[in-house]
Amino acid sequence: MSARIRAGVVGFTGYSGAEAVRILRHHPSAEPLLLEHRAQSDSEKPVFDDGVERFAFTREGLAESKADVVLLATAHEVSLEAVPMCLEAGVRVIDLSGSFRLRTPDQIKRWYGLDHPDPQLLADAVYGLPEFYRDKVRGARFVSNPGCYPTAANLAIRPLVAAGVINREAGVVCDAKSGVSGAGKQPTAKTHFCQVTENFSAYNVMFHRHVPEILQNSDLEESELFFTAQLLPLHRGILETIYVRTLEKMSHADVAEVYRKAYADEPFVRIYPEGRLPDLRAVQETNFCDIGFKVDPETRRLTVVAAEDNLGKGAAGQAIQNMNLMLGLPETDGLL
Amino acid sequence: MSARIRAGVVGFTGYSGAEAVRILRHHPSAEPLLLEHRAQSDSEKPVFDDGVERFAFTREGLAESKADVVLLATAHEVSLEAVPMCLEAGVRVIDLSGSFRLRTPDQIKRWYGLDHPDPQLLADAVYGLPEFYRDKVRGARFVSNPGCYPTAANLAIRPLVAAGVINREAGVVCDAKSGVSGAGKQPTAKTHFCQVTENFSAYNVMFHRHVPEILQNSDLEESELFFTAQLLPLHRGILETIYVRTLEKMSHADVAEVYRKAYADEPFVRIYPEGRLPDLRAVQETNFCDIGFKVDPETRRLTVVAAEDNLGKGAAGQAIQNMNLMLGLPETDGLL
Amino acid sequence: MSARIRAGVVGFTGYSGAEAVRILRHHPSAEPLLLEHRAQSDSEKPVFDDGVERFAFTREGLAESKADVVLLATAHEVSLEAVPMCLEAGVRVIDLSGSFRLRTPDQIKRWYGLDHPDPQLLADAVYGLPEFYRDKVRGARFVSNPGCYPTAANLAIRPLVAAGVINREAGVVCDAKSGVSGAGKQPTAKTHFCQVTENFSAYNVMFHRHVPEILQNSDLEESELFFTAQLLPLHRGILETIYVRTLEKMSHADVAEVYRKAYADEPFVRIYPEGRLPDLRAVQETNFCDIGFKVDPETRRLTVVAAEDNLGKGAAGQAIQNMNLMLGLPETDGLL
Amino acid sequence: MSARIRAGVVGFTGYSGAEAVRILRHHPSAEPLLLEHRAQSDSEKPVFDDGVERFAFTREGLAESKADVVLLATAHEVSLEAVPMCLEAGVRVIDLSGSFRLRTPDQIKRWYGLDHPDPQLLADAVYGLPEFYRDKVRGARFVSNPGCYPTAANLAIRPLVAAGVINREAGVVCDAKSGVSGAGKQPTAKTHFCQVTENFSAYNVMFHRHVPEILQNSDLEESELFFTAQLLPLHRGILETIYVRTLEKMSHADVAEVYRKAYADEPFVRIYPEGRLPDLRAVQETNFCDIGFKVDPETRRLTVVAAEDNLGKGAAGQAIQNMNLMLGLPETDGLL
Repeated sequence: MSARIRAGVVGFTGYSGAEAVRILRHHPSAEPLLLEHRAQSDSEKPVFDDGVERFAFTREGLAESKADVVLLATAHEVSLEAVPMCLEAGVRVIDLSGSFRLRTPDQIKRWYGLDHPDPQLLADAVYGLPEFYRDKVRGARFVSNPGCYPTAANLAIRPLVAAGVINREAGVVCDAKSGVSGAGKQPTAKTHFCQVTENFSAYNVMFHRHVPEILQNSDLEESELFFTAQLLPLHRGILETIYVRTLEKMSHADVAEVYRKAYADEPFVRIYPEGRLPDLRAVQETNFCDIGFKVDPETRRLTVVAAEDNLGKGAAGQAIQNMNLMLGLPETDGLL
Repeated sequence: MSARIRAGVVGFTGYSGAEAVRILRHHPSAEPLLLEHRAQSDSEKPVFDDGVERFAFTREGLAESKADVVLLATAHEVSLEAVPMCLEAGVRVIDLSGSFRLRTPDQIKRWYGLDHPDPQLLADAVYGLPEFYRDKVRGARFVSNPGCYPTAANLAIRPLVAAGVINREAGVVCDAKSGVSGAGKQPTAKTHFCQVTENFSAYNVMFHRHVPEILQNSDLEESELFFTAQLLPLHRGILETIYVRTLEKMSHADVAEVYRKAYADEPFVRIYPEGRLPDLRAVQETNFCDIGFKVDPETRRLTVVAAEDNLGKGAAGQAIQNMNLMLGLPETDGLL
Repeated sequence: MSARIRAGVVGFTGYSGAEAVRILRHHPSAEPLLLEHRAQSDSEKPVFDDGVERFAFTREGLAESKADVVLLATAHEVSLEAVPMCLEAGVRVIDLSGSFRLRTPDQIKRWYGLDHPDPQLLADAVYGLPEFYRDKVRGARFVSNPGCYPTAANLAIRPLVAAGVINREAGVVCDAKSGVSGAGKQPTAKTHFCQVTENFSAYNVMFHRHVPEILQNSDLEESELFFTAQLLPLHRGILETIYVRTLEKMSHADVAEVYRKAYADEPFVRIYPEGRLPDLRAVQETNFCDIGFKVDPETRRLTVVAAEDNLGKGAAGQAIQNMNLMLGLPETDGLL
Repeated sequence: MSARIRAGVVGFTGYSGAEAVRILRHHPSAEPLLLEHRAQSDSEKPVFDDGVERFAFTREGLAESKADVVLLATAHEVSLEAVPMCLEAGVRVIDLSGSFRLRTPDQIKRWYGLDHPDPQLLADAVYGLPEFYRDKVRGARFVSNPGCYPTAANLAIRPLVAAGVINREAGVVCDAKSGVSGAGKQPTAKTHFCQVTENFSAYNVMFHRHVPEILQNSDLEESELFFTAQLLPLHRGILETIYVRTLEKMSHADVAEVYRKAYADEPFVRIYPEGRLPDLRAVQETNFCDIGFKVDPETRRLTVVAAEDNLGKGAAGQAIQNMNLMLGLPETDGLL
């Protein structure tokens, strides 16, 4: 592919959008365009011109931009309108909102409280978790980018479920912790520095919107999964501690084998050797999802630790990975 | 004094107001009342009943509350109306806003952009820095509580100016750093956790609203003072590093003597011995202003470090100290 | 009791010891003494004399100090020698180390790698968790103070186990997170600021030394419990997220009833109403252990969140609570 | 230059050394080699093989490594021996320690307490601040890399001194704040997380080792400069607030002109427009030194804010910039 891909980013002032622009600036075969959904004030603008082209995010602006693909780092409601607008303009779309992640309008209604305006588009959306749906993502025109928590959860849990090695009756616990950027850039009482620093708290226990995304991709039932989202006093990163019982006694090597089968050729999933576990430092500002674990074969207990950057593999990094696949570029371009 | 003082706090959900309530709960001869200026949502209310009485902050509520004194931890505009309302009701007032700190309407106009509605009240306000104005504060009906930055700055600078030991032509530099609670509880882009963590920035360089408060109490001219406010990635505390030239060679003991003369009997100003300097930990959650310094006699350089808790001596602690003086209570009650 | 209790603290430069001294300074009927186990350098000493008496922690110093009780905030090996020394001198002891928390030498050998030198003393030690062993603590001469993680874990888990309401076959998961002070004051690579800030990590997964303490007091089997310790980038506080399945459908009120039965008269355990959960801010610098929870009756899932200050109820606060009981003082003295 | 440059890094486990390796891994025409000065424990080693070659840092290892240049991110004493060893082996050296930054043995004696073993080598060392000494750095065999504080200080101060626009009698104040990585990776009481978090403190007031480095490159006299180093509760970044009086009234444009003359063609010094000032976020993980300022022409006050990453332009980034110049590579290679 000789010409450079023109990748428009809507919502580039938000955390995920800004991260997408950052990655695209170092991408060997693509370049970012800023698609302005609203005007920026002067103080929001960068001090030094970064040389990135700007266009209005309108039908006309989009045409003028000659974008090959648009990344929507936008609110749910904005995405609902923006996705069809891009597709009608013949531009590929990756939506980072939650509006197209669940499979049915009923699910969207239950978890987001929305009457989905376009069930057909919902059904057509490709869920952009390349490790499991790579063939569908390749060449797709519209990809719904996974949520941050579900990405790590599914990468850690699904191979164990698929291999049939865990005792589903005992259930699966996913205790998740995220940095504050996961809550978005909008200032709120919950993201005020003084509320967060030296603090730690749980929120949306059991019924977080990301639960159905974990369920539909890991093949677990709702009754089988415990999920808790918790807020870490730090900028970026997600670490999930996952607890399962194995059906048979499994050694570290046995579990490693399950993961190696699933991820042997995956560029962005790293399985840790015995005695080592990922921390957030290992994955910040990367597109990796790192997985380590500890087993006690005798009691069939297995604790898995999965870590990712919520803005990397959990959002913008994965979006670029999807973009590469959609456009036939090398999957790791711009991400290593 | 046999009966307990009833001290109403308006703005008790803000940082300074909440700190005032906290101090009053441990006060030996006063107790807090919550005066509600606006309704709180359920999620803002404390989980467990704290046994503190609540009243509406209206003429009627104020009468009903039987408050002896009211602390206004409120926005400038709110204080402008609330001060006369309290005084007319025969209730003493301590205003923690900036509305009555400067002496003339012209100053208020220049630095706050406000046409002050009550110049007489402005002139009547007692500036509540007990170390310098104790006699006026004692028994006062209306005290304007000093700003956080000026409290430490004046305590550090004024004795040096008053003693005539510094070279004013060389100027005075006050490089100030504050925790985020100094910016208030209102969520803004500047107080978002992700903006603050791992960051440090200067703001309002040279023309911060607190500058005239430093000048009018230290007797410096505007042209003689450099002041910079800077935001530390932490919750509470102010540290100011102050640079002056002495007129004559002064040893550590010489400078210590100046401060000891000023503060020998002060309960809340602590002068550090040679070789030690205050850090924020030393003053957090206290009403102390700690002062340490380093001299180079040969070159007449003197660097002073002053630290306080911006919510303590810089706001609520000092307000309680003023309250004690106004009501004839022991000055340190509730503060040690 | 007319005379003030003299409470010696060994290890007062460490986090738990310093916290004990801080609490004792505000205790209505006791006062702290510093018992020096090693000499302090000048820079370690407080800048201002705090008026606390100091003695050498030797047989002679102990006699001279006239201590009524000694709190050992010391390393395991130090406590092993210090406990008998105090008891032989006729002084009551509260040991905050792990040396006497497990019931048998075999347990000590397995989890601490120590050959315990005094099995009889080990058997005689009273485990100082007042909510469960108050009668034994009252008047005791030697109390072993619980570990930080087990205190919250047992307070949250034991009533559920004792009431027989949880499905033990499905297991209990305790996902624990602690501030850095839990790792002690000794500087190490793991506690370096740059290693901790903006990071989060799991350690001692499944086989942390605190596991047997949880088991022996909650009546769970090792195979039934998952425990993970994790390091939060903050100073103090522990939050544990606990996952269990109930045997029958239980509403929030049903679970609340279990906890209310266990803790109705407890001054330091607070049960949260539906819809509210504790965070670390609620318990920092207190002796509370706060417990909140979320249930899904249909699927019998129960998620419990327990929070405490690891230096408060998790160490020094609880030690003072034990001291009060041992000496016949009001249990809450100095702790509210 | 067709063959890739082989750049050995000694001290690659420290913060500066690790940063140098990180930069070199993305360098278009150089690659890192790890030169082991001491053996690493298993837990210190990276979890995944990073493909970087390792050699012992001995005469033999150095020869075997075929290094073209060695970066010494080592302690003062180590550098004193390592520099001649490399030069004798015909390998270029960039020393990041302080051992060769001052010009005379007397200075080294006064500020470092060292009898310098090789005054000739000291005299031969090229001070690697390319903005001022580019011609000497180009092609040099031995460069002494500037200290972190002096880099920003000299870049901000020297053009003003050189242009003769400031009132030197009034003095220059440099109030400097640094992240904790500036204190090195060795765990100490001062770098313990619990000591640093929510704290801020000054150290080495007036007589920091970096003072003579500022003086000898800015042409100021010791008596003219105030310097204070202060510790920020964050990982990386230095911000210096600098206060001077101008001799004549100068507008923002006038001062900007002074800086533009000095830095018009500099790739790594950015001058901010009126109304904007750098914060640490702007420079973290970059090789930029950003400079902004505020003037009050009437009173001739000028406040300058300079920011850099202490591990970037303040250490490893600048070392790579020097390496590029020494070896005839494009100066910005690997740094943008």
